[in-house]
Amino acid sequence: MNYSEESLRKHGEWRGKIEVVSRVSVGSREDLSLAYTPGVARPCLEIQKNPELSFSLTRRWNTVPVVTDGTAVLGLGDIGPEAGMPVMEGKCALFKSFGSVDAIPLCIRSKDVNQIVETIKLLQGSFGGINLEDISAPRCFEIEQRLKKELEIPVFHDDQHGTAIVSAAALINAAKLVGKKIENLHVAVNGAGAAGIAIAKFFLKLGVAGLILCDSKGIICEGDPRLNTPKQEVAKLTNRNKLTGKLAEAMKGADVFVGVSVANCVTKEMVQSMNKDAIVFTCANPVPEISRQDAFDAGAAIVGTGSSQNPNQINNVLVFPGLFRGALDVRARDINYEMMLAASNAIASTVGDELCPEKILPFAWELKSHEAVAKAVAEEAVRTGVARVPIK
Amino acid sequence: MNYSEESLRKHGEWRGKIEVVSRVSVGSREDLSLAYTPGVARPCLEIQKNPELSFSLTRRWNTVPVVTDGTAVLGLGDIGPEAGMPVMEGKCALFKSFGSVDAIPLCIRSKDVNQIVETIKLLQGSFGGINLEDISAPRCFEIEQRLKKELEIPVFHDDQHGTAIVSAAALINAAKLVGKKIENLHVAVNGAGAAGIAIAKFFLKLGVAGLILCDSKGIICEGDPRLNTPKQEVAKLTNRNKLTGKLAEAMKGADVFVGVSVANCVTKEMVQSMNKDAIVFTCANPVPEISRQDAFDAGAAIVGTGSSQNPNQINNVLVFPGLFRGALDVRARDINYEMMLAASNAIASTVGDELCPEKILPFAWELKSHEAVAKAVAEEAVRTGVARVPIK
Repeated sequence: MNYSEESLRKHGEWRGKIEVVSRVSVGSREDLSLAYTPGVARPCLEIQKNPELSFSLTRRWNTVPVVTDGTAVLGLGDIGPEAGMPVMEGKCALFKSFGSVDAIPLCIRSKDVNQIVETIKLLQGSFGGINLEDISAPRCFEIEQRLKKELEIPVFHDDQHGTAIVSAAALINAAKLVGKKIENLHVAVNGAGAAGIAIAKFFLKLGVAGLILCDSKGIICEGDPRLNTPKQEVAKLTNRNKLTGKLAEAMKGADVFVGVSVANCVTKEMVQSMNKDAIVFTCANPVPEISRQDAFDAGAAIVGTGSSQNPNQINNVLVFPGLFRGALDVRARDINYEMMLAASNAIASTVGDELCPEKILPFAWELKSHEAVAKAVAEEAVRTGVARVPIK
Repeated sequence: MNYSEESLRKHGEWRGKIEVVSRVSVGSREDLSLAYTPGVARPCLEIQKNPELSFSLTRRWNTVPVVTDGTAVLGLGDIGPEAGMPVMEGKCALFKSFGSVDAIPLCIRSKDVNQIVETIKLLQGSFGGINLEDISAPRCFEIEQRLKKELEIPVFHDDQHGTAIVSAAALINAAKLVGKKIENLHVAVNGAGAAGIAIAKFFLKLGVAGLILCDSKGIICEGDPRLNTPKQEVAKLTNRNKLTGKLAEAMKGADVFVGVSVANCVTKEMVQSMNKDAIVFTCANPVPEISRQDAFDAGAAIVGTGSSQNPNQINNVLVFPGLFRGALDVRARDINYEMMLAASNAIASTVGDELCPEKILPFAWELKSHEAVAKAVAEEAVRTGVARVPIK
């Protein structure tokens, strides 16, 4: 099937992938008097007395906007806020189908960090949490950091942490299959945008032995004056041997390659230079860093890609519905590292007995995976003290 | 039934009066490839080329936020943004049930005109129109005026124009019943907030013979230095005989009284001082300006109230679902006076043969009324040149 043509046709037919429905009956005088005036004055007054009640007397508890400025949509780059909306709507449909979360797409016509932060901040009373999406680096880091500090509801930038969480889940299962321990793995990551930097930090917290991060110019090294602030910060954690050079240098002897970069930037020779039983995740979309077949031909033991057409799709959709479900269920004030790690482990565990080189991750449509993520995240929120209500 | 207690109980049970649902199937690899990646890249790119396509390839065409800052919620005053949410959600449920509009509640934590305008402006790419709600006067006038000027989608402040439109519909039918012509009517309006000022302007455009507007201090008179800008402006149109005094003076000899003010501010004597076959609309909620019985006892021929417990409820819900349905259907760039007048006439006509002193307006749950409003508004948008697409 030509997905491009068919998807365009379908979008024209759907005229929207989500819609809002009423949960109440308004077909009589009595119905209206309860759901609307005069009865509705009472829940309003109760919330005025105690604003926390907005989480139980309205849909706030379950509502999350998928917010973008349209500057880094898929691999398409800065296509503008309106043009990002089909992706945001798609995420909202997935949020509901896999996480029972009421998500709405919001695009913001600004690239200004202050304006974006301010806009979201002013709207927070409408929502239970905030999902940031497809905002370009390095602005995305500052926006997320400021919102996490200034908002009372959890904030999650999916391109960073969703990608890191699902990549970690893939890594956990891949390492198990090739019989290597996480703490012995040397990792090369190509792409130092939102996803690459988040993956680097997450894998290091996970305990990998070493990690080298490359951007389009080559290996990122601490102290390089050309680096922007987020790269300088991650450079303090990565490349502890101060290696210099291009990606090819970074991949030599590595156990794991993770590409969140561009098409065809990895050769067979580069994969051949990796350690035995190499784990290769090529997430560039639609054309990967190296084709799956070429990676296998060059000796990779396990290959994951960003494509839905291959086995082992490393897809954030395994993360965000369950993660928010769990966070919302306990009214978490934050989504912290422990909750993210719990999500990775839950995703990895769900594969269970089916674990094999062709299946290191659940399929997106396996509801048990999303349920496991939600449960693990909620429990970890309680354990780490960020939950505002107990697990029901 | 104690609506206050029962509504609170119901709100706790509902935990939200609306929810978001997916319109697409995401249960297989192929489904995901069409609704999400990789297929979704194509509609994104098409919108990038032509942003107008966001109205056909996403739900934008049918999506309207109900935006408030929580400063003038029902008759409760400035109760805060979160506390206004039960009302906003209720409107969203009504928008869908009566107008098939996908509405979402948005509360803004600011009372600053610039911040509110800027926030809505930055989000406009997500929506097909904007419904402003329960924002206090005089800020609501400036916010609406600026947004109408600066946005490419229609903006409607329901407290002003929804109230004016439905009051006009009630007036049209009431005048017919008492055998008076609109152009001969003398009107007294009490309350010079959002609703009162909008009613005054709308009734004057409708062609009433004269109109006197009062605020809590009494009759508004051109040139009075105590008046704020919106009152000064409306004072140029009203009270052409430069009458001074209290509400009682304004009501003497009037054919019509409209109260959008406070409880018990009208006496029987004041109604008795009105012209024969007086039309009395007492919209203060929950306690009216004068009780229905007292108004009748004092000689009123027709009484409308703001309460759902009486006949002739003068309720905005007769307006906004159909009005937005019509405006969205033709992608109107504005909601102009002609469209509003068409809505009034459509509401009035719907009553048809049932017209009698106890039924001057349709019931909110009569779908034919909303359909008639939608049709009339869409036609008028086309006729007045603000429609971007023809009627289907």
